[in-house]
This record gives sequence, C-alpha cells and structure tokens, in this order.
Amino acid sequence: MKQRLTTEEYAAGIASGDRVILAKAISLAESSLPEDQHQSAELLAKLNPKTGDTIRIGITGVPGVGKSTFIEVFGKYITSLHKKIAVLTVDPSSQLTKGSILGDKTRMEELSKNPLAFIRPSASGNTLGGTTGRTRECILLCEAAGYEVIIVETVGVGQSETGVKNLVDFFLLLMLAGAGDELQGIKKGIMEMADAVVITKADGDNIKRAKAAQADFQHALNLFTENISGWKPKVLTSSALTNTGIKEVWAAILSFKDHAIHSGYFDLQRKEQRVTAFRESFEQLLRSELEQFPEIQKKSSILEKEVADWKISAQEAAQQLLELYRQSIKKA
Amino acid sequence: MKQRLTTEEYAAGIASGDRVILAKAISLAESSLPEDQHQSAELLAKLNPKTGDTIRIGITGVPGVGKSTFIEVFGKYITSLHKKIAVLTVDPSSQLTKGSILGDKTRMEELSKNPLAFIRPSASGNTLGGTTGRTRECILLCEAAGYEVIIVETVGVGQSETGVKNLVDFFLLLMLAGAGDELQGIKKGIMEMADAVVITKADGDNIKRAKAAQADFQHALNLFTENISGWKPKVLTSSALTNTGIKEVWAAILSFKDHAIHSGYFDLQRKEQRVTAFRESFEQLLRSELEQFPEIQKKSSILEKEVADWKISAQEAAQQLLELYRQSIKKA
Repeated sequence: MKQRLTTEEYAAGIASGDRVILAKAISLAESSLPEDQHQSAELLAKLNPKTGDTIRIGITGVPGVGKSTFIEVFGKYITSLHKKIAVLTVDPSSQLTKGSILGDKTRMEELSKNPLAFIRPSASGNTLGGTTGRTRECILLCEAAGYEVIIVETVGVGQSETGVKNLVDFFLLLMLAGAGDELQGIKKGIMEMADAVVITKADGDNIKRAKAAQADFQHALNLFTENISGWKPKVLTSSALTNTGIKEVWAAILSFKDHAIHSGYFDLQRKEQRVTAFRESFEQLLRSELEQFPEIQKKSSILEKEVADWKISAQEAAQQLLELYRQSIKKA
Repeated sequence: MKQRLTTEEYAAGIASGDRVILAKAISLAESSLPEDQHQSAELLAKLNPKTGDTIRIGITGVPGVGKSTFIEVFGKYITSLHKKIAVLTVDPSSQLTKGSILGDKTRMEELSKNPLAFIRPSASGNTLGGTTGRTRECILLCEAAGYEVIIVETVGVGQSETGVKNLVDFFLLLMLAGAGDELQGIKKGIMEMADAVVITKADGDNIKRAKAAQADFQHALNLFTENISGWKPKVLTSSALTNTGIKEVWAAILSFKDHAIHSGYFDLQRKEQRVTAFRESFEQLLRSELEQFPEIQKKSSILEKEVADWKISAQEAAQQLLELYRQSIKKA
C-alpha cells in the first residue's frame, strides 16, 4: 500500500516547487474521500498566507478557435520571460464525451515539457464542492508552488464560464474572425465578462477579416460593457502560426493588473471571490446534505413535476420540502 | 375591526374582475404575516388553473428613458384594442429613496383612470419570498382577474432584471438615442436578456440619432445573442410625443408570442419559470430559517470577514457554518 504523505510533507514539497508533490496535492484536493478532503483543507490553511502576487487568467472559446494552440504559444512566451506558468483545464463535458480527454494527451506538447510550465486537466465537475470549488484549490496550490501566471482554461459553452469568472482576475475570450454575425456558439453573457477578446488565426488571407472582426467586436464591447473596474476591454488579434500578437496580449494583461491594483479593484475582486466561494461552498454542502436523505430527493422530484404542471404553487412546494428537511435532520 | 374576506370571497371577487378585491388580494400576497401568507397560498392554489392565455412583458430602462410615458402610451393603445392591461412596478430602490414613490403618484395618470387598466406599484423587496416571489403572485392574481397583458416594470439598474426575466415571457429594454458609446448605466447582461430594444423619444431632431442608434443596437444584438427560442431580438424606435412606433412594438410582441407558442418555447419557458420559482422559494425559506437563529447570523458575519482576510479557507468556513446549523435545528 502506498504511504500517505503528511500535511507537513505536502506543504514542504509544494513550497520547494516539487511538481510531483504538487500533482499529488491537486489529486488530494480533487478527491471526494472524507479523509482526503480533511487533509486538503488542512494543507490549504497552511499554504494560504503564501499565495498572493500572481495573475489568474481565465481563457475560453468554442472548440476550433485554437485554445490549446494559443495557450501553448502564450505559455512559451511567458516562460521565455522566466516566469512560471500553470495551466488548469476545466472541462464539464469530459464526463460526457471522450473527445476532449483524448485531445488533452496531445495538446500543448511542447509547453508540457517546459520545466517552468505545469499543465493539469481538472477533475470532472460532479464532485462535492463543484468544479469551481476544486479549481480554486488547485489555483491556490499552484500559486503556493511558485507559479506566477495561472491559466484556467474552459470550453466556451456557457456551463462553466460564470464559475470561472469568479476564480480569475482577468477573463480572456478567444474568437474566430469571419464567422459572420453569429456568436460562434458562445453563450449569452460570456462576451460581456471578457476583459479582452483575442481574434485568433489572424494570418495569411485571414488578416483582413480578423481586423474587421476586431473593429466590430471593439465597437460592440464598448456598447455593452459597463466598467466596474474602470477597465476598457481590449480587442486584439493573434496568430499562433506566425507567432504574432502574443506579447501584446501579455501587455494588455499587465496593463489591466497595474490599473486594477492601483484602483484597489484587484484586491477587492479577490476578497469578493473568497466570500463568494464561502457562500457557494456552504450552499453546496447544504445541497449535498439534502442529497443524503433519499426521501428529500424523491419528494423534490415529485414537487418539481407538480409545480411545472401547475398542480401546486411554488411557495407551497417549497414549504413542504423545508418541513421534510427539518424532520430528516432531527431524526438523523 | 375590518372584516377579513374568506378565500372563497377573494376567489369569486377576482373571477368577476372586481378591482378592489384584486387590490386586496395583492396586499394579502405582499403581507408578511403568517396567516396572510397562508391564505394567499390557498387563494393561489384555487386560482392557478384559471390563469394562462396571457402575455407577460418585462420593461426596463434607466431613469429618464421615459418608461412611465412609454407604458402610458402603450397601455392606452392596448386598451383601445379592448384588452385589459395590468402594470406592476418592481422598484428595489423605493425602500431607500422617496423619489420613486412620489413619482408613482403622478405617473400614468390617464392610464390609471382607464377601466381596462390596473396599475400597482409593488411592495418593497425585503420580505419573505423576495420581490420576484411576490411579483409572481401578483401576476397570477391579475391574470385570474382577466388581465391579458401584464407589464412588469423595473428600474434598469441591474438588481432586479434577472429576477424579472424569470417572471415574464418577453423582455423589453428601453434605450435613449445619442448617448454615444455608453450603455447609459444599463448593467452588463441586461442588454442580452432583451427580446426587443425600443429607442425612445424618436421625434423631431432626435429621429436621425434614433435611427442610427437602432442600426447600431441591431448590429450589436446580432453579435451578442444566441437564440434559444429561435427568436431574433428586434430593435425599434418610438415616440410618446408623436405617438409613433407603439403599435409596431405590440406587433413585435405578438409575433414573438406566435413564434414561441408554435415552437413550444412559450410553454417550456413558463414551466421552467415555475420550477425555478420553486427552487428559489425553497432557498429563500432556508435562508430565512437561517436568519431565525441569531447564533448563525453572528457566526456567518465573522466567517465572511475571516474568509475575506484569508484567515480561514472558504471550505472550512462553510463546514463550520453547516455544523452550527444542524445543531441549531436539533435544539429548536
């Protein structure tokens, strides 16, 4: 049987930047075993004060937009600046399709061999704490291991972006040029979360279309965006093929960070994200507690159907469910 | 002491279209007294099967865009078609500022005298069930009283729109022309919820700017909108002064309804809204139960601060709060 690392061994390994121990700590955070959960919480409590001066970047875009290619080229640029970069992938669809898992193996091949880079596909989302709960822990672990640039990659299908927005400092949306007036499958609301949009594959015959799309999106973003942070979202173009536009993306991110730190928005957003994580954690715990009572699950499905079919009012159904929950806790 | 109406008297009065009894039933729904809550639930259960063939329209826009004026002119047009219209106002700010309450008195003066129209500012949002919970009940009561067109008006400041979207079939955003590239204070995400945008005050010197804004917004909406329902959001112009564009707005709403009924989206959306209302009700009940335990409120504030200041992890804080909740229920 495999020897279990102590929390101190995990903490020391992570502090020294040991990739194997970091990977193990992430597995621990992703495990749903109660003893693993407990140790992971203990480890995070130890590491918390060490995490901080980093930038967390969410990257999304539909399949085919070239996310892995972009991240590979971007990651190589970051490592060329002697900065450590970690790439975490949140893929809610990996439970359903095998495509993305197969894809992961051959993705970012060069970057994954770079000693300054750490790439980790995240566990599936259906575990206690949810995708974002676990991903938040992975971010903290990577930061504690000395990674300064954290990429959280997600598939642009709208299931995970809102969650990811709550994990990162900067949200980057990758788009294709020349796809006409269609949003290329990007869900409502995603565009508005973007701190920057990058039009990919801006090379060869495509440059003209990319420039037109850039103007288009910049105009639309100006129309749609309010600036809580005071930041004006940027639209940029890039090509992984000709390696252009990459350092401009990094410059935009640094300019955002500088702006947000001076305005106080950077710290404020992270504080708010932690409080949101607390509330979400509590609600997820409550929900998973509810799931432990089979009688509540059963009653809930029946009530949902009755409410949909208008046999009972929403308020009445809610009252019935709460009453059952109280009784179940008292009996437990 | 005032005689209390029986549930049967309420139901009969509403079925006969008695405005005084409708107004009383709405007050009953808005009351936070347990006996009123109980009777209101009983009444809604009785009325539910009678509500149905109506259109619920959410209208929003920043102060100054001319919401009341638009609704007054629109309402007069609807009543000229011999249709009954009810206007419910959701104003989360009315608790804070007296301005909107004073404003309400002089608003929609002509429409309020029309026997086919019923205007009702809603109660403040800080009651059990929340603004949308109560507004949902008011919609059902108005529909049961024979109102075919239900307007839910809300201030375009982002606090209530998401909730209102879950109450209505059609979401209408009023915008001003010529305010440049700014979104006039409309929060992120509001624009994307719109099934139609109406540029108001399109008269005199303003017509040209309104037409330009119309083209602009139509383009931006096409870029930003995915079509779950298959509906393409329309951008229209109107003037309350010259009474133009009003019947075009109604035509667009009817065209949407026709489209959504044929595709099945209309019924589907209403079913989903009922199930969402059930879940929200349950969560609100849980939250209000949590508030009944002062020790939980106290602990929650302490934990939030500790989480924000990074003294404790979000997961750990959530665990502590859940444990306290369990103990409190068992003791209660």
